[in-house]
Amino acid sequence: MRIESVDLFYLAMPHITDEVDGSQDTLLVRVRAGRWEGWGECEAAPLPCIAAYCCPSSHGVCKPVKTAVEGAVLDTPEDIRRINAEVRRLGLDLLQTDHTLSGIDVALWDLLARAREVPVYQLLGDRVAYPKLPYASMLLGNTPEETFEKARAICVDGFRAAKFGWGPLGKGTVDEDVAHVRAAREGLGKEGILLIDAGVVWGDDPAPAIARAQRLREFRLTWLEEPFRSESLDAYRTLTDLHPELPLAAGEGANNFALARDLVRRGGVRYLQIDAGRIGGITTAHQARLLAESEGITYVNHTFTSNLALSASLQPYVGVERFRLAEYPTEPKPLARDLTVEKIVPDANGLISVPDAPGLGLVPNLDIVRQYLVPVRIVAGGRLLYKTPEV
Amino acid sequence: MRIESVDLFYLAMPHITDEVDGSQDTLLVRVRAGRWEGWGECEAAPLPCIAAYCCPSSHGVCKPVKTAVEGAVLDTPEDIRRINAEVRRLGLDLLQTDHTLSGIDVALWDLLARAREVPVYQLLGDRVAYPKLPYASMLLGNTPEETFEKARAICVDGFRAAKFGWGPLGKGTVDEDVAHVRAAREGLGKEGILLIDAGVVWGDDPAPAIARAQRLREFRLTWLEEPFRSESLDAYRTLTDLHPELPLAAGEGANNFALARDLVRRGGVRYLQIDAGRIGGITTAHQARLLAESEGITYVNHTFTSNLALSASLQPYVGVERFRLAEYPTEPKPLARDLTVEKIVPDANGLISVPDAPGLGLVPNLDIVRQYLVPVRIVAGGRLLYKTPEV
Repeated sequence: MRIESVDLFYLAMPHITDEVDGSQDTLLVRVRAGRWEGWGECEAAPLPCIAAYCCPSSHGVCKPVKTAVEGAVLDTPEDIRRINAEVRRLGLDLLQTDHTLSGIDVALWDLLARAREVPVYQLLGDRVAYPKLPYASMLLGNTPEETFEKARAICVDGFRAAKFGWGPLGKGTVDEDVAHVRAAREGLGKEGILLIDAGVVWGDDPAPAIARAQRLREFRLTWLEEPFRSESLDAYRTLTDLHPELPLAAGEGANNFALARDLVRRGGVRYLQIDAGRIGGITTAHQARLLAESEGITYVNHTFTSNLALSASLQPYVGVERFRLAEYPTEPKPLARDLTVEKIVPDANGLISVPDAPGLGLVPNLDIVRQYLVPVRIVAGGRLLYKTPEV
Repeated sequence: MRIESVDLFYLAMPHITDEVDGSQDTLLVRVRAGRWEGWGECEAAPLPCIAAYCCPSSHGVCKPVKTAVEGAVLDTPEDIRRINAEVRRLGLDLLQTDHTLSGIDVALWDLLARAREVPVYQLLGDRVAYPKLPYASMLLGNTPEETFEKARAICVDGFRAAKFGWGPLGKGTVDEDVAHVRAAREGLGKEGILLIDAGVVWGDDPAPAIARAQRLREFRLTWLEEPFRSESLDAYRTLTDLHPELPLAAGEGANNFALARDLVRRGGVRYLQIDAGRIGGITTAHQARLLAESEGITYVNHTFTSNLALSASLQPYVGVERFRLAEYPTEPKPLARDLTVEKIVPDANGLISVPDAPGLGLVPNLDIVRQYLVPVRIVAGGRLLYKTPEV
């Protein structure tokens, strides 16, 4: 079959806050081929992604994403991999390319797996989907007391693992940061798996992270996440070398395989966190999972948004039993919370699994899509380049 | 003073070809503050850059570029550096950010240097602007004969250095590639400085480059440029380690300082090619030039477009005498060729210099801007986000 249409839907909450909460909007992608339909999401700024999809060509390797997608043959996983590589080749000089590609690639896997009537992970070559231990993914409270209450509440909800991040962390003194981490540990209890997300607060500078590393030891973090920007490999390496006892996690900012690989090989990252909606789709996420296996480090999804995005980011690694943890968004905005009818929820053992159904196993609720739709219209040089399609 | 307006103009040739020729369109930036005006260019896809400038916020660190620019204080170079850093912080999750920032940052330096009545390089702290030896930058011919004729013609024009790239290179056999390089060397003569640009044709795979390295030795290349994509640090390192006699050049794909640094420190690149219109502007280009000085490698501009872009990419390093070479576009399309009234042309000694005038030393010809203008209109959620302003 051939790809007949790619439709991009910009969805957003009516009011966007300054929280670092990616669930406030999304770019939903629908692909149609043959009599099939697949869905995906870009975990990215919707409007620049739309522009990268439909813009006029600038030159031979600065072409819009659509060039290698529309009309392409889609019969096998190899076709998806070929489309993925061709989009990247033709979009070499178009920076936004990888983010736009991500949602499309996810939708292609969903579509092809539906056509084959298998879950995506089976199309990727895995036979079994292992349940994962979900960690509740939350922003830090504004005060240690708030953080403590959030941690307590999450325990009551049955979670055995939780991540706290962003907010005040790294913006005040070392003592203030330690107070937040202590509050999180006390709220979570001794046995809970505690993860701290520094939200790239130290940019490219290892010094503030080094100043805190020793103090964090007593709280037994499973990982410290993103002390630095993804491209700051030297800073990761410096911190790893000085504090090998503090495992680092990163990867959500990786928009290609090479950056994920360098975070592991050169930065010394031990938990590789991949968002299929950003790294280039399920194709590239699966490459990163194979890397994590061969390097002996741990792969984990990055997901802060909908259950559709959660399924897309779980599929590439559910087949590996030893990758036990999964990020599980617990505070998504109504848009992300309600986007799918079906939900991925913890079972009686507190574990989550991908749906036992073809493709990603869940689809968007079209009423919700219509409710949050932001209609977009782009005209350049008198040509209508993009108009939000019918839902 | 405060930044009062930022205007983005999408200019394009009426017909865009599939050549890898970035001079076919541009995003021109005009910034106004006080009674001053500054100009810059993004060497990037115009429409996605516009979208990254004006899109609605997605969350706390996925904000449009305008957030940290409009209304900002602009009195000193430190103000520009602060704006640059703030754009990057707030645009962490918006991939296109660096490309949009680049043209704006260039315009800010132009504006501030005009207000101070000094050339940009002096505002950067350099006292003297050294003339540079321009190398003619051209695409390879379709056949070795064509390449030979191009090389001959460029000698007749008085160039002592030339770069040939893209086109057929790496797409056929080793022998075919060698035939092209031989033709270029023969056309250029024994004494000419010969540079070959592989145009990232081998992606992430060092093997085809290794297969050619030995054969290239007899042609005494000053550098082999971009055998791989910018993020493929391992491939650069492998080729460098196996063939230390073949100097590698890269950096035009770098959209931030960290990537440029890693190409040098981890990839072993010996010629760092920076486009101010892509790496994050003159601020970031100057950081890369300081790196090249401290690492003992060679900095060189990347410019394939207008003389305005050429001045912007020369200013960060004209103050360093030992960085002798400069890329000089010799085949720009009429849009890029005619964009400025003033031109940067080789002097009697065959050398080029930045204009001895405030700012970048040249301004766009507004008749040419109007001639090639692509009017753009973007509406989202019923709000007009962008409409091409009056020239």
